[in-house]
Amino acid sequence: MSKNKEIPYKIYLEENEMPTSWYNVRADMKNKPAPLLNPGTHQPMTAEELGSVFCEDLVAQELNDTDPYIEIPEEIRNFYKMYRPSPLVRAYCLEEKLQTPAKIYYKFEGNNTSGSHKLNSAIAQAYYAKKQGLKGVTTETGAGQWGTALSMACSYFDLDCKVYMVKVSYEQKPFRREVMRTYGASVVPSPSDTTEVGRKILAAHPGTGGSLGCAISEAVEVAVTNPGYRYVLGSVLNQVLLHQSVIGLETKAALDKYGIKADMIIGCAGGGSNLGGLISPFVGEKLRGEADYEIIAVEPASCPSFTRGVYAYDFCDTGMICPLAKMYTLGSDFIPAPNHAGGLRYHGMSPVLSQLYDDGLMTARSVPQTAVFEAAEQFARVEGILPAPESSHAIRVAIDEALKCKETGEEKTIVFGLTGTGYFDLVAYEKFHNGQMDDYIPTDEELAKFRANLPKMD
Amino acid sequence: MSKNKEIPYKIYLEENEMPTSWYNVRADMKNKPAPLLNPGTHQPMTAEELGSVFCEDLVAQELNDTDPYIEIPEEIRNFYKMYRPSPLVRAYCLEEKLQTPAKIYYKFEGNNTSGSHKLNSAIAQAYYAKKQGLKGVTTETGAGQWGTALSMACSYFDLDCKVYMVKVSYEQKPFRREVMRTYGASVVPSPSDTTEVGRKILAAHPGTGGSLGCAISEAVEVAVTNPGYRYVLGSVLNQVLLHQSVIGLETKAALDKYGIKADMIIGCAGGGSNLGGLISPFVGEKLRGEADYEIIAVEPASCPSFTRGVYAYDFCDTGMICPLAKMYTLGSDFIPAPNHAGGLRYHGMSPVLSQLYDDGLMTARSVPQTAVFEAAEQFARVEGILPAPESSHAIRVAIDEALKCKETGEEKTIVFGLTGTGYFDLVAYEKFHNGQMDDYIPTDEELAKFRANLPKMD
Repeated sequence: MSKNKEIPYKIYLEENEMPTSWYNVRADMKNKPAPLLNPGTHQPMTAEELGSVFCEDLVAQELNDTDPYIEIPEEIRNFYKMYRPSPLVRAYCLEEKLQTPAKIYYKFEGNNTSGSHKLNSAIAQAYYAKKQGLKGVTTETGAGQWGTALSMACSYFDLDCKVYMVKVSYEQKPFRREVMRTYGASVVPSPSDTTEVGRKILAAHPGTGGSLGCAISEAVEVAVTNPGYRYVLGSVLNQVLLHQSVIGLETKAALDKYGIKADMIIGCAGGGSNLGGLISPFVGEKLRGEADYEIIAVEPASCPSFTRGVYAYDFCDTGMICPLAKMYTLGSDFIPAPNHAGGLRYHGMSPVLSQLYDDGLMTARSVPQTAVFEAAEQFARVEGILPAPESSHAIRVAIDEALKCKETGEEKTIVFGLTGTGYFDLVAYEKFHNGQMDDYIPTDEELAKFRANLPKMD
Repeated sequence: MSKNKEIPYKIYLEENEMPTSWYNVRADMKNKPAPLLNPGTHQPMTAEELGSVFCEDLVAQELNDTDPYIEIPEEIRNFYKMYRPSPLVRAYCLEEKLQTPAKIYYKFEGNNTSGSHKLNSAIAQAYYAKKQGLKGVTTETGAGQWGTALSMACSYFDLDCKVYMVKVSYEQKPFRREVMRTYGASVVPSPSDTTEVGRKILAAHPGTGGSLGCAISEAVEVAVTNPGYRYVLGSVLNQVLLHQSVIGLETKAALDKYGIKADMIIGCAGGGSNLGGLISPFVGEKLRGEADYEIIAVEPASCPSFTRGVYAYDFCDTGMICPLAKMYTLGSDFIPAPNHAGGLRYHGMSPVLSQLYDDGLMTARSVPQTAVFEAAEQFARVEGILPAPESSHAIRVAIDEALKCKETGEEKTIVFGLTGTGYFDLVAYEKFHNGQMDDYIPTDEELAKFRANLPKMD
């Protein structure tokens, strides 16, 4: 099957074609995502309350569900120009390998040192912290992509950066720590004895490898107890999805430039930052009745918040000090089994995506990790890029869909998000090569146990 | 100093602006590089003799010093389209940080999974091996960039790939091995007991960490003793510089597109593959009297073949089974001190570059490694990209030159080659962060000792 290659392998926008505003999908949603609630009073968090944790401008963005476009400040646009636009790649070689009539495109966000899309929001959050005159920010990181991105962004704006890194990742990924140090960040394995909540968790679970939920609690505690610091988060929040909309806006501009209409959009989903950013402008068209797309969220079978979670108010962190969010969740104590490699290990899901999913605007699938790494290796061998395990969830489903097209003869146009590279995930690849990876999936009984800890909301 | 940013941060060529031929600088050289000699007879190697080690088409390219342009086969151009053109980046942020009137550009070759420019020649060599109907190829790798690149290329053309990896790198960089395994290569630490020459070296130097020279000897032995296999090399050879000219051709096309005239071109030099590729078209203009450029090779002070070596016939490998090459060399037994981090550890230098250097068409500088890592960190913090230690040699001198411009007020246009990323060099970065790096430089007595082993040529 030889194809006419009138579409270039890589579509790059010109600098003057890059987005100048982010797109705020909430403005077009009839059913708005539910507000964050005060964990004590169960009343919606006010701007003032949120301002003790987050920067002012980011609080405004968090609460804004009416303005469809929010201008990207020039300083951020200049930083974007250092590593954006990211290419929209036509996967000619993968198509040929699969012998599929489908046309496959991927938006590749890995061509920057953080290795992922996380930098899109990190630079925005660092910018607003600097603008507010803060000394620094605190955050958590799991696989390390977000922490790396934030340390790059803080270095650029000369802000202090304290990163609480999930202990199991800290130990498995010492190189990530060195990258963050290169950018001047301090990195603490979590849970740690540097915070009250960390000491509590350590006392209750000695020897724990930590979780994103623990690390968030520690980072928030440090932010609210140190003057001149605020907390920043790499996923889940409305503001993060807003910043990440740059992915979807560029994707749409690149498709439009060549008159390409996508049929299906696929992205991996952990907290939802990449998926939300990628699909926003397309969902906007769906919401406004201008176009239709099949949208698929892909999550690990070992952390299935969409496919096996419940839509309810829950804590965002293990220490239960953050606001409550209404989202698809497995319960804030949930931690994926130790064999789970790579990211996408958050117990909840972005409130925006949760509402869109609940409204039937997108679907979700879960995939076991061996199948994910098989897709990753197949992709690497033909397309050259060594993908992050997270991104490989989307690759798995894109390949599955392309193979369906081979059976049916449909020439669907499939677009997926390739969020990052796997250069710091070689321990997981090694496990895969050595046949040491397993596909443990939590039982219904296990999930019920975690669900029992959801907050009572009446 | 605020600059008018009419030049984009990143210049990308369109697919139809990409080179369709490689440029062969030897065709324009009045003094041709000296021929490879048979190590037994000291007579120029014939095409037939070379054909037992290298693929046919590559032998022809190795010997061709008359055709200025050699067409890039369509299969290779298609592969190039997956990761090329690479961006020519205007280092606005570095310029601002340095407060220099100089204009700094870098050609960034790190946006592919091999993490460096090595893929440009790997894919060409794999293509010709496939075209000849071979089963596979053998090679050596030091830091692992070349081995990774070759394994990617062999995977694409479905060729077997056997990599002999310098033992000290094999042990320090297990992740590189896993990347190569992902692409289906077999990786052996060198010296090994799988070859006669390896066993000899192990007997003479028990516990040695290996060297590129040893690994070359092993890979060549396996190629010549296994039917259907040939040896491929990632640097030094004329054919490699030919393939790498794609770097310089793209750089020149990007500069020309915006009417930019470079004053100075800077590249790091180990065996010379990146530097030779980057400067070829510019040197061509110098040779033809069409333009002038200051060209600077930068090498580690711990492996100073240009600045402290001799221009003489020498063995390319430690086992002395390869042809003799006339080049700037430290002697084929030379191995940099164990504290030396990163690549650029080859004892010799490309015969093409050696001749150009001897003819005064370029200059060379050596830099100590702590200063190199300081430049690397400074660059990473403002330009975002975490550079490979190799590339950081060029960054060091580019920064030094930009600071000179600050003193003199000159608005020079400086172009340097950023050959790759440092994601697999975090052990070296960690040493740097922990103050465990030293700047040992070989003494004159040590260098004289290695030089005494040059072959007698009368």
